[in-house]
Amino acid sequence: MPTKRSPAPAVNPEAAGPPPGTDHAALRLWLRLLACHNLMEEQLRTRMRESFGTSLARFDLMAQLYRYPEGLRMREVSRLLMVTGGNVTGLADRLVAEGLVERCDDPLDRRAWRLCLTPRGRSQFATMAAQHEQWVISLLAPLGERNLTELVELLGRLKNQLGAP
Amino acid sequence: MPTKRSPAPAVNPEAAGPPPGTDHAALRLWLRLLACHNLMEEQLRTRMRESFGTSLARFDLMAQLYRYPEGLRMREVSRLLMVTGGNVTGLADRLVAEGLVERCDDPLDRRAWRLCLTPRGRSQFATMAAQHEQWVISLLAPLGERNLTELVELLGRLKNQLGAP
Repeated sequence: MPTKRSPAPAVNPEAAGPPPGTDHAALRLWLRLLACHNLMEEQLRTRMRESFGTSLARFDLMAQLYRYPEGLRMREVSRLLMVTGGNVTGLADRLVAEGLVERCDDPLDRRAWRLCLTPRGRSQFATMAAQHEQWVISLLAPLGERNLTELVELLGRLKNQLGAP
Repeated sequence: MPTKRSPAPAVNPEAAGPPPGTDHAALRLWLRLLACHNLMEEQLRTRMRESFGTSLARFDLMAQLYRYPEGLRMREVSRLLMVTGGNVTGLADRLVAEGLVERCDDPLDRRAWRLCLTPRGRSQFATMAAQHEQWVISLLAPLGERNLTELVELLGRLKNQLGAP
């Protein structure tokens, strides 16, 4: 009978030890980048839920609408968030029901509409975004100015190589 | 009337320029880490779809089952993948229908069952995983051994600081 074993959380892809073939520095880098990303996201997800009762998906949707005050079409939102239309529709419907998002006229197409934040939505998002920034700083700043700067520089090279637009 | 403006893809969170308050290196680092993560994931997502007609979610689910040959309960899979039970159920149902995953007995609980890869599922996953590794190497290796090693080292410090288990 196999022993009972608790699966290592996927939040830290390195926890299970390196899979076969991970002697290559590129593979180690990808697993470590994934681990850092997932640990940060998990921290931010938990804080967002505990402080504002909101999900990261919802926060991200509001962030996109905040960036585009003239509104976004549904399929633009889907593309920006890289989720299926169904998910965005459900999220948007709930935000509309809560009075944080509204459907507004599309100035380029009289038959269409866009999603926009309501004034209350803008105000609520601004509060959450300021707090989110403080969380990011409190999580990363202890690394020290020198490490932070080096990481920003090295990840900049990586980003360029990956063909960032 | 606002000018027509194409939203910058969320795949590169820095594309829109720094949001207000991003003078702090910690914020720059988080945006850049997100950008690198998203660019890599987008590349891997596209290749996985084009080469194997499969999604990353499906690949990740198979990866977890591959790591646990004795099988995983549904809620363990959900926790590992950090998605809702509903999503995992749908993914798993499709994999079962395709003969890549099967429901097997739970050795610890006669009334329960676990998800396991079928031999064909294991074989198919092994092929995809080997290709996935080669993609990661081809995307990251051009950065050069020295940059790769420095990044692995610095991200290791970050990971420890973020309290990796």
